[in-house]
Amino acid sequence: MKKIGIVMGSDSDLPVAEKAIDTLKELEIPYEVHVYSAHRTPIQAAEFSKNARDNGFGAIIAFAGKAAHLAGALAANTTLPVIGVPVKSSTLDGLDALLATVQMPSGIPVATVAIDGAQNAALLAAQMLSIEDKEAADKLQAKRERDAEKVLEKDAAISAKY
Amino acid sequence: MKKIGIVMGSDSDLPVAEKAIDTLKELEIPYEVHVYSAHRTPIQAAEFSKNARDNGFGAIIAFAGKAAHLAGALAANTTLPVIGVPVKSSTLDGLDALLATVQMPSGIPVATVAIDGAQNAALLAAQMLSIEDKEAADKLQAKRERDAEKVLEKDAAISAKY
Amino acid sequence: MKKIGIVMGSDSDLPVAEKAIDTLKELEIPYEVHVYSAHRTPIQAAEFSKNARDNGFGAIIAFAGKAAHLAGALAANTTLPVIGVPVKSSTLDGLDALLATVQMPSGIPVATVAIDGAQNAALLAAQMLSIEDKEAADKLQAKRERDAEKVLEKDAAISAKY
Amino acid sequence: MKKIGIVMGSDSDLPVAEKAIDTLKELEIPYEVHVYSAHRTPIQAAEFSKNARDNGFGAIIAFAGKAAHLAGALAANTTLPVIGVPVKSSTLDGLDALLATVQMPSGIPVATVAIDGAQNAALLAAQMLSIEDKEAADKLQAKRERDAEKVLEKDAAISAKY
Amino acid sequence: MKKIGIVMGSDSDLPVAEKAIDTLKELEIPYEVHVYSAHRTPIQAAEFSKNARDNGFGAIIAFAGKAAHLAGALAANTTLPVIGVPVKSSTLDGLDALLATVQMPSGIPVATVAIDGAQNAALLAAQMLSIEDKEAADKLQAKRERDAEKVLEKDAAISAKY
Amino acid sequence: MKKIGIVMGSDSDLPVAEKAIDTLKELEIPYEVHVYSAHRTPIQAAEFSKNARDNGFGAIIAFAGKAAHLAGALAANTTLPVIGVPVKSSTLDGLDALLATVQMPSGIPVATVAIDGAQNAALLAAQMLSIEDKEAADKLQAKRERDAEKVLEKDAAISAKY
Amino acid sequence: MKKIGIVMGSDSDLPVAEKAIDTLKELEIPYEVHVYSAHRTPIQAAEFSKNARDNGFGAIIAFAGKAAHLAGALAANTTLPVIGVPVKSSTLDGLDALLATVQMPSGIPVATVAIDGAQNAALLAAQMLSIEDKEAADKLQAKRERDAEKVLEKDAAISAKY
Amino acid sequence: MKKIGIVMGSDSDLPVAEKAIDTLKELEIPYEVHVYSAHRTPIQAAEFSKNARDNGFGAIIAFAGKAAHLAGALAANTTLPVIGVPVKSSTLDGLDALLATVQMPSGIPVATVAIDGAQNAALLAAQMLSIEDKEAADKLQAKRERDAEKVLEKDAAISAKY
Repeated sequence: MKKIGIVMGSDSDLPVAEKAIDTLKELEIPYEVHVYSAHRTPIQAAEFSKNARDNGFGAIIAFAGKAAHLAGALAANTTLPVIGVPVKSSTLDGLDALLATVQMPSGIPVATVAIDGAQNAALLAAQMLSIEDKEAADKLQAKRERDAEKVLEKDAAISAKY
Repeated sequence: MKKIGIVMGSDSDLPVAEKAIDTLKELEIPYEVHVYSAHRTPIQAAEFSKNARDNGFGAIIAFAGKAAHLAGALAANTTLPVIGVPVKSSTLDGLDALLATVQMPSGIPVATVAIDGAQNAALLAAQMLSIEDKEAADKLQAKRERDAEKVLEKDAAISAKY
Repeated sequence: MKKIGIVMGSDSDLPVAEKAIDTLKELEIPYEVHVYSAHRTPIQAAEFSKNARDNGFGAIIAFAGKAAHLAGALAANTTLPVIGVPVKSSTLDGLDALLATVQMPSGIPVATVAIDGAQNAALLAAQMLSIEDKEAADKLQAKRERDAEKVLEKDAAISAKY
Repeated sequence: MKKIGIVMGSDSDLPVAEKAIDTLKELEIPYEVHVYSAHRTPIQAAEFSKNARDNGFGAIIAFAGKAAHLAGALAANTTLPVIGVPVKSSTLDGLDALLATVQMPSGIPVATVAIDGAQNAALLAAQMLSIEDKEAADKLQAKRERDAEKVLEKDAAISAKY
Repeated sequence: MKKIGIVMGSDSDLPVAEKAIDTLKELEIPYEVHVYSAHRTPIQAAEFSKNARDNGFGAIIAFAGKAAHLAGALAANTTLPVIGVPVKSSTLDGLDALLATVQMPSGIPVATVAIDGAQNAALLAAQMLSIEDKEAADKLQAKRERDAEKVLEKDAAISAKY
Repeated sequence: MKKIGIVMGSDSDLPVAEKAIDTLKELEIPYEVHVYSAHRTPIQAAEFSKNARDNGFGAIIAFAGKAAHLAGALAANTTLPVIGVPVKSSTLDGLDALLATVQMPSGIPVATVAIDGAQNAALLAAQMLSIEDKEAADKLQAKRERDAEKVLEKDAAISAKY
Repeated sequence: MKKIGIVMGSDSDLPVAEKAIDTLKELEIPYEVHVYSAHRTPIQAAEFSKNARDNGFGAIIAFAGKAAHLAGALAANTTLPVIGVPVKSSTLDGLDALLATVQMPSGIPVATVAIDGAQNAALLAAQMLSIEDKEAADKLQAKRERDAEKVLEKDAAISAKY
Repeated sequence: MKKIGIVMGSDSDLPVAEKAIDTLKELEIPYEVHVYSAHRTPIQAAEFSKNARDNGFGAIIAFAGKAAHLAGALAANTTLPVIGVPVKSSTLDGLDALLATVQMPSGIPVATVAIDGAQNAALLAAQMLSIEDKEAADKLQAKRERDAEKVLEKDAAISAKY
């Protein structure tokens, strides 16, 4: 099975990124975690991305805040899909990171998820692998069913109470 | 090769969606085009999505404006990756469609691209297929190189002129 | 008297939704409370909505945050009025939920109230019932008068103090 | 059958409001059209609203732009439901009108629809009447089915062409 | 000397409004404080405003949050200047109140100050009185000079320390 | 009668400012028109403002776009009321000018009106003069009544037609 | 004298960039113009920036729209000052480019000017050179005086006319 | 070596500004710190700026919140580069300060950095000095390398742990 690369622009993004790691673990999808800054270590970020396909990665998830360039910088160096997670920082409530991640120019897409949407980034990566991997598809389907079950249990509890 | 499903919430999205169709054609990736509204034809939209994997689709691209629910509604019914293209309409400059597409709750991701970012949606779909499809990867790499070449030609022309 | 359906997209919306429940109780209007996610349990959400008129409901109030599709998904399956309450979540201060709720395309309206505006959602539901129900109209009028009285009491206290 | 009151804050809102009038006509719902400004004719606006229930109205639709107070001013004077249509003007793309219409304080709700969402305002008014009026409910259901049919016809045409 | 009317839409605005009261006290300008809601007590709000000139007021300061209509509602009933203070509430960081206060239609201006800008509202009222009142002008000028002096003292302290 | 100073940051603001001039003419209030830039001619702008009270001005109206500092720069140099009109320019739909005009720090208020709200700026200036000038108050009241009459005439025409 | 590097992310930015070129010409400051995309030609962009100091450049001006990463990508590869000009594109009125340019993380600043602010970018570059270059300082001072003179001429014309 | 002027609009900006002071210390660049308000002490602010070049300054850093005019007011009085740091205050999350700082009109640029971006302001000032000062360039380059090293150390630690 292809690995998922998890790259943070700063180790301060780790509390958000951990939810993606947990989800990949739950789905038994292999991953690697890295800290590469698009601006402070541009060469290492580019190298990681350039070699990602050859190194057995199937997709990359990038976490960055503010003028979040990391996902775009990785995407510029690979034709693997890159998933961008805009991270909320101390000002502007994540809007800056969202626009800097999603509004990519023609030619270099970034698959953007919600601000701080780490769990969905992991699920999206798994969905990409599931295109050709029936096992991943089955695990995702099972998780969907568990999630639905949880909602229905809550419905039963709350509709009984009120 | 897996097909790409292109779904518009309204036929008024066609001028935007055509850029995705053209890009898939250029990359020789098979596709189907549909008009299903998340609100006016919710059953047909859900049916398309539920059967997409069995019908040979690898990913779905959804175009919708305003309170753009289409991508999310399709994503709720499949574990294939769904790419959302927020479409700019007559008010709010596309911000409503962007937020309604990207800010998905945990469990159901939508891979969101830029407002009116149809070409990138097609490229992202191709990148997803390329995870396991070397031919798609090679075509994408070739397109990247052609795009880079065009930039350098423009650089040569403009740096000479000014 | 017709019932009001209260539907939350997640049980995390309950603290907001409780203000609507309290207001319906105060007005002695019958209600049912449910948790149905537009994305995790789309079928149950649609079923509830499709059968709501036959099941004695007069209006539905939907609570959802982020890319808040729930109100629209319910509205797509009934011609009863659906009231949408955008719920503020951890990013963007509720703007995402507001736009995803209110900017509905032509054909499927959602009667949107303020972000976290649960009390007003209940009042609006009561006002809808009051079109043909004199008792509801009288109760609403009485509440208006009590509310006005409270303002005037505060005016008396504060204008005396300062 | 109850009438729907259509009130514009300025006759410049007429091009938007006409879509609501057309929809009410199509649904054979009686209506009256007025121009009352919340600021330039506050007394007449309040009078209209205060007497609306006695004058046979079932709901009021208010159109206003910029710091759009009209819907709130009407709502303050009746316990009938008031539907607010924020109208886009020359600056801020309708955001000012949307926030001034929807963010009502507790006690006085306004059922807000999309910016320039005149057709949905009329449909929402009809839905309110349909709570107790089977004929209105049937007409709305028929319109829903016609709308769905149109989407499917477009799907057939477009999916055949591309 | 003319009085300044201070009107809050809700007693929850009092902590903000107190800074205006303090400033008027400091400038020895007479004032009255009231709680009138544009929506819950529209008649009393209008009455206060209609009679303000005859009752010896020179200007009115209105405090309101969310879809802040109070300043506009008062302004609609007097030709005295009305100063609007948008009050920040639990969502949208005050932007809703700002737009609902400042974006008034032609014919009925509201002199808007910053979100939560209570002190400036009081100073602006005093400046309006100062047009014909030399004493008020002198007090304002003296306050300006004290304020400047404070800045320069801080400059001396900080430039010495760093 | 006191004069009103009209100051533009650039002669490109003239088409907006002319509506203020026309309104002052209609109300027979004397005025002077100037072009002073807060940034290109800071000394002349400050001089005008410093001497405005002695030169017979009662209030100043400032027009500026983008990072609109002019109203604040004038206000810093006088204790007369300064009215700020944010002018919409080619980007951001006037939001930048609005925030740069209205969000003044404590101590130096600017009476801000709507984006491009030139007519209201003139009316607000007249309202300030009317605090002590019965003639101005009477003219404003008469204009209010004419404006109301126009609305009612439009109501008569439109309610008859539809 | 040091050269100024002008880099566009796309040749579609040329109409905006030409105002910077014209201003540098007017100030007789040498420059080079290039088209390098942060995403399509990341290596060439980085190379240009890395060698800029050795190649006689004193500052770099970068033009880019949407998720405007170019200025940041150049800044990551040089310790020369990089000036970012956010370019307005077809959606969001330039806000995306502004935030993506200005909200840089600690360590790698970008000197950001207004959306489409090409002339100011050139002036800012000249101001940087003027720190050690008296001739540049004198030219800038002379331009300032000419600009002030133009404002005063317009003031004379307009204050005479109105 | 030229000095850097650090100017705060209010001493409440000091906690933000201290990060700039620390960075200049670390780079051994001389500086002076002042508190001058664009509105409360406009003359002193202008004087400081007018004399800055003659007093041995090479650049000025201005800190201000809300309708942040300070950077522009300083820039209007010198042809030295002025760096603006928008400071987040209690409302609008810093957006007001950002727009009021960056959206300067043609002729008077302000080099704007991120909201609360004090460290980058100091680095940018150092980069400006480095155009002609090899020692500053070397220090900046060394700091860049230390910063990159820190990122790589974190990468090693985190990639080992997860």
